[in-house]
Amino acid sequence: PQLLTPELLSGFLPRRRFDFHKGQAGRVGIIAGSRGFIGAAVLACGGALRAGAGLVTLLVKEEVYELLAAKVPPEIMVKVVKDYRDVLDMRFDALAIGPGLGFESEDEILNVIQYASMPAVVDADAITMVARTPVSVFLTSTPPRLLTPHPGEMARLVGDGSSHPRLTQAESWAQAFPGNTLLLKGARTVIATESSPTFFNTTGHPGMATGGMGDVLTGVCAALAGQGIPLHQAAGIGAWACGRAAEIAALS
Amino acid sequence: PQLLTPELLSGFLPRRRFDFHKGQAGRVGIIAGSRGFIGAAVLACGGALRAGAGLVTLLVKEEVYELLAAKVPPEIMVKVVKDYRDVLDMRFDALAIGPGLGFESEDEILNVIQYASMPAVVDADAITMVARTPVSVFLTSTPPRLLTPHPGEMARLVGDGSSHPRLTQAESWAQAFPGNTLLLKGARTVIATESSPTFFNTTGHPGMATGGMGDVLTGVCAALAGQGIPLHQAAGIGAWACGRAAEIAALS
Amino acid sequence: PQLLTPELLSGFLPRRRFDFHKGQAGRVGIIAGSRGFIGAAVLACGGALRAGAGLVTLLVKEEVYELLAAKVPPEIMVKVVKDYRDVLDMRFDALAIGPGLGFESEDEILNVIQYASMPAVVDADAITMVARTPVSVFLTSTPPRLLTPHPGEMARLVGDGSSHPRLTQAESWAQAFPGNTLLLKGARTVIATESSPTFFNTTGHPGMATGGMGDVLTGVCAALAGQGIPLHQAAGIGAWACGRAAEIAALS
Amino acid sequence: PQLLTPELLSGFLPRRRFDFHKGQAGRVGIIAGSRGFIGAAVLACGGALRAGAGLVTLLVKEEVYELLAAKVPPEIMVKVVKDYRDVLDMRFDALAIGPGLGFESEDEILNVIQYASMPAVVDADAITMVARTPVSVFLTSTPPRLLTPHPGEMARLVGDGSSHPRLTQAESWAQAFPGNTLLLKGARTVIATESSPTFFNTTGHPGMATGGMGDVLTGVCAALAGQGIPLHQAAGIGAWACGRAAEIAALS
Repeated sequence: PQLLTPELLSGFLPRRRFDFHKGQAGRVGIIAGSRGFIGAAVLACGGALRAGAGLVTLLVKEEVYELLAAKVPPEIMVKVVKDYRDVLDMRFDALAIGPGLGFESEDEILNVIQYASMPAVVDADAITMVARTPVSVFLTSTPPRLLTPHPGEMARLVGDGSSHPRLTQAESWAQAFPGNTLLLKGARTVIATESSPTFFNTTGHPGMATGGMGDVLTGVCAALAGQGIPLHQAAGIGAWACGRAAEIAALS
Repeated sequence: PQLLTPELLSGFLPRRRFDFHKGQAGRVGIIAGSRGFIGAAVLACGGALRAGAGLVTLLVKEEVYELLAAKVPPEIMVKVVKDYRDVLDMRFDALAIGPGLGFESEDEILNVIQYASMPAVVDADAITMVARTPVSVFLTSTPPRLLTPHPGEMARLVGDGSSHPRLTQAESWAQAFPGNTLLLKGARTVIATESSPTFFNTTGHPGMATGGMGDVLTGVCAALAGQGIPLHQAAGIGAWACGRAAEIAALS
Repeated sequence: PQLLTPELLSGFLPRRRFDFHKGQAGRVGIIAGSRGFIGAAVLACGGALRAGAGLVTLLVKEEVYELLAAKVPPEIMVKVVKDYRDVLDMRFDALAIGPGLGFESEDEILNVIQYASMPAVVDADAITMVARTPVSVFLTSTPPRLLTPHPGEMARLVGDGSSHPRLTQAESWAQAFPGNTLLLKGARTVIATESSPTFFNTTGHPGMATGGMGDVLTGVCAALAGQGIPLHQAAGIGAWACGRAAEIAALS
Repeated sequence: PQLLTPELLSGFLPRRRFDFHKGQAGRVGIIAGSRGFIGAAVLACGGALRAGAGLVTLLVKEEVYELLAAKVPPEIMVKVVKDYRDVLDMRFDALAIGPGLGFESEDEILNVIQYASMPAVVDADAITMVARTPVSVFLTSTPPRLLTPHPGEMARLVGDGSSHPRLTQAESWAQAFPGNTLLLKGARTVIATESSPTFFNTTGHPGMATGGMGDVLTGVCAALAGQGIPLHQAAGIGAWACGRAAEIAALS
């Protein structure tokens, strides 16, 4: 295992060329939010924006369009979809799937996770959907996925395996689904991929134990992936930066 | 009586363990807000959030859902209930009841105050409801309640007793309803419980004489109770911290 | 004429007693906002809040309730009235009338200006209504009014008199309507009352030449009046403080 | 070509007289925003406000009125138009046309660009509309226009010419449409007018490669034009100031 340090992480972040433009900064699609859970979508969008995405589009069902259009930062575009699978025909460089989704469109979401042709961060309710699907959607999907479970969601993913140490749980999952990355939240967050050294995060504090932190992280990781950073590295930068932001907030 | 000081209060605040997670930081349910009084609910939610609650859910009637979902901070979940008594079947670690409620659902609210199985802060219109109920709901409820009246609401609670000194009023009420706590707002706020020394707050200033201060305090106390702090101590920390925050705001 | 200085103004501001409570800080009613002009109401409410009002209630017609309830700061209460004259039966310590009102309810507004039993600030469209009424509503109203016209609105009020110097215009109006106060905006703002020395403001800068400044001033003056400060003095403090705030903003 | 420097630009900014009032600071009309793209309108309005406009009015279709009225800063007026051509009969000192418009009202927008009697900034979807019109609307319009394309929009405007160097593209367009100005976004932004030296901007950084930057710039340029600054100079000040603001934001 490797500790996440600024030295290590700065090597993951591509330097933006002088003439870099928003088309190169990544188009990020966020599938999040449902009636009763709109705030999670707002937080994920904010995370993506702050992590440097070129263009962030929130994809929602009609019933929450007005609420979310009013609440997201003005830089975010909000697009109504009839079926989340419509996203499969849209051009995005990365997706974030899950915050505040609820379970009304489970089949649609599972299909997007399985078939979308770009990297995707899978979080929150979308993880639970994956966990209760008999056939793993990751066995057939080609583009990599980053799952970001908290321990409760991890238990759903690994079943009996949840009695093992956190490191073992994460690495076992990564071995079982090569090409994909697993970020297991906690103190310390563990990030595992089959072909790379496992990361331990070094930032953050117990004041982060509150709803919404994970939604922001999901948006941050998706924005980094949209800029072409591999998911394993994106997860590392995201976990470290969110924890460091919380440290700065606590001191100010 | 005991003066609230940082030394005393720091003993009340549990130290968060390194691996503390949001499930341990408390699920807080807030019953607040009605048409014409939505801001009070927003302020109570904000207070709960800033006081470190793990998850804050605002429980509202359908008619104000859209307005409140748009207005609360994105970390707050907003859930529609048909009857506030539905809360009795939900899992919360603490409740805040009252800010901006109005009187349309008086029976429902009184039932929640009486029967909810977790600690609850009772404020604003909910205090007035309690005051005009012939049989005190506190005689039969087991879990402790914290009432946070301003002097006008206190007068409704104690009737003729309102001619007595503030300290007497608070302590008499506390003796009559052992297990519960009374926070009587004013300069200086008094906090009384039958089995503990009465607290006097030492923070705050006359610039706090404005609508909304009490709503924030209610959210703060509920969040502290949700983290397992006894209501008498939660009231002490809440009153002190809100007053200190106002001092800092006045100086900046 | 007298220059407004911090020394002079500090004598106008009552010191808040240690045990001052929100009931003493003034209940302010704000009659403002209509479809297409909701921002002016928001700014007036914000001004009243920042100037220390105990409780601010925005009074609106049904059609803009949702929009304004969503947009005002959460400390503001928003109340729907069928007829603005309903305000005549409500308990307020001061009123602000005019920002963003439009002209759909002209008779109602003129009646409120004429008959409301508390001090009132009359601004914006409400000034224009007064100007085009053949019989001055101020001849019969007992409680004092503060009018806050900009030069264009002043011209409507005084007709041919608008060719006179600003000082003369303001003082003539004040002589004609004893007991009332006139604040004529400009560089330098002039404040005239029949029985008091005329004030010249000393703060502000040309960066204030933008829509919304007057709305904030109206709220500020109403909040000061609600705390028992005579309108002539409230106008002086309000004009000075808004200008000073703009100076601070320009330097930061 | 000339580099934009503070020394050069300060000569373009008129000094506000001591008694400057909002009527002299410009009435700016903003035609922006449609369902799914409301944030762009919010950003353009914010830009106009921060650049010192006297009065900013956002002109929208009924279907997005509520959303935009709730979301714009309170200083902005929002006015519903049935047909954007209604703007031709309104009194504005400058217009901004394009952010988030979509293509539903293409004929109306092209007519406004062609016939409006005041300077106008043409951006985003409005540029694309111009590009796909066989007859240039600029051949017959008298008042000057400022176009602010990014490279993709520029390619639509100049067709085969997009293989030429950026400077050539901008200057060729300016020669073809004398009296109008073209601001070609990029690192470095180029600003060309037939009768003036071409400007190169010197501020900004790759962190600006994100959606919404152009919307703000459009509002800023329109506000400057509304204060009587020629479009070529307004574009120079706007590009420089937005880039400098981004530099300051990156350092803080």
